[in-house]
Amino acid sequence: MADSGWPGCARSLKGVVLDMCGVLYDSGEGDGVAIPGSIEAVKKLKASDLQLRFCTNETQATREKFVAKLQRLGFDICVSEVFSPAPAAVAVLKERGLRPHLLVYDGVLPEFDSVDKTNPNCVIIGDAAENFSYQNLNEAFRVLIGLEKPLLFSLGQGRYYKETDGLKLDVGVYMKALEYACDLKAEVIGKPSPMFFQSVLNDMGLQPHEALMIGDDLVNDVGGAQHCGMKGVQVRTGKYRPSDERHPTVTANGTVDNLARAVDMILGQRGH
Amino acid sequence: MADSGWPGCARSLKGVVLDMCGVLYDSGEGDGVAIPGSIEAVKKLKASDLQLRFCTNETQATREKFVAKLQRLGFDICVSEVFSPAPAAVAVLKERGLRPHLLVYDGVLPEFDSVDKTNPNCVIIGDAAENFSYQNLNEAFRVLIGLEKPLLFSLGQGRYYKETDGLKLDVGVYMKALEYACDLKAEVIGKPSPMFFQSVLNDMGLQPHEALMIGDDLVNDVGGAQHCGMKGVQVRTGKYRPSDERHPTVTANGTVDNLARAVDMILGQRGH
Repeated sequence: MADSGWPGCARSLKGVVLDMCGVLYDSGEGDGVAIPGSIEAVKKLKASDLQLRFCTNETQATREKFVAKLQRLGFDICVSEVFSPAPAAVAVLKERGLRPHLLVYDGVLPEFDSVDKTNPNCVIIGDAAENFSYQNLNEAFRVLIGLEKPLLFSLGQGRYYKETDGLKLDVGVYMKALEYACDLKAEVIGKPSPMFFQSVLNDMGLQPHEALMIGDDLVNDVGGAQHCGMKGVQVRTGKYRPSDERHPTVTANGTVDNLARAVDMILGQRGH
Repeated sequence: MADSGWPGCARSLKGVVLDMCGVLYDSGEGDGVAIPGSIEAVKKLKASDLQLRFCTNETQATREKFVAKLQRLGFDICVSEVFSPAPAAVAVLKERGLRPHLLVYDGVLPEFDSVDKTNPNCVIIGDAAENFSYQNLNEAFRVLIGLEKPLLFSLGQGRYYKETDGLKLDVGVYMKALEYACDLKAEVIGKPSPMFFQSVLNDMGLQPHEALMIGDDLVNDVGGAQHCGMKGVQVRTGKYRPSDERHPTVTANGTVDNLARAVDMILGQRGH
């Protein structure tokens, strides 16, 4: 399809932030598959004078395991370049002296190894998938309702995602469930939280207007980045839907077919 | 405690509607226990010239089994006097030609025996308790998201209830989850839906101002009845909390210690 708009900022750009699932690869059996052109596109960005970071709401594995998967798929990527909600949550817990009750996927538990989990004074939920049993949700609810000031953190707020065997409910659905049960508002850690994008900008030492976010999720990637003062481009891969281009509240600064095309546009404008 | 207000309508009353759990009995091990004075209070109402109906959001058993339990506890009650969401849902399904995918407690399934459930074009959720597994909720979600016009019915909208082993998440929590996942608004069947109260009034052949609702749930019993034009009295048993008497939006027409006291007030005003 034709490109739809493009931010006129490519020449003044100093950094690019990439969403991962749906931009670099599609998930599925085993490691999933790289999206055509994306491995090469990451290589080109790394060879340029732009800073590059990766920003994901993935919470089913530790960053180490997640990055190893991407490396197996052929991507030139390392753990220190990847921002995901679990390490961000650990930073929040330590800063605020909080001890979590965790309702997360088993694979991400090691990220919380360094955290005191005795006598919990908050609840953290991630994309727990099969761990979202009635019993486990009830247990998280009882911890919350037993606190003087119930405090719920949600690692993302997605509605659902696609796997090879069909659509699957994401963490946001269970966040809404617990919000209603306890009459509270959760704090979201991960995209689209401005704090999460800001931590990526801080790591690059850049101002928002110097960085561009590229993602397949209009609301969480593009809208979240824009809310933080960055530009946001949507790719027509992953969870992109044609109706995104007529979204009532979020308009991408540009929409292109895939990451390869986006990178060619950026580098082309910069005279590479 | 002292009575707090009382509707001045007792003399013109023609019917009384009673909530069940928390008014007649407290649930728990086995059949639970009758609340002191409530068996006698029901007897007195039946001996009066007032019509009497029972109105519950119970969806874990068929009406037959539920009424048999109340009879074992000592209550003079029969199936035709009891209004519960499942039969109301069956009426809606037949009227609108709908075929449901059911996510309910096993015990209530027989209520839906007469309903065509092939090739579903709507989803009905009840208080499914342990049946609210990730897999079952995902399945209900996939049915909804696959429909051209997703249609979700929720048998009640409670947040949680109390059993002997602690608080348990109620159907409203999972209603909110599916509402968020599919970006829709569920139709609630049961209290506090005005349609549900209206069906009880129709059965008695009464106008709203001729009937009084007595319940322990301020929002669903009292507020729901008031929304329908009835008066509503709250009893200080079951899920009553002192903070109910300072609720920001719902004010009961009267608050008394228990059903026995409420019935004595009603019959006393009528000169019995």
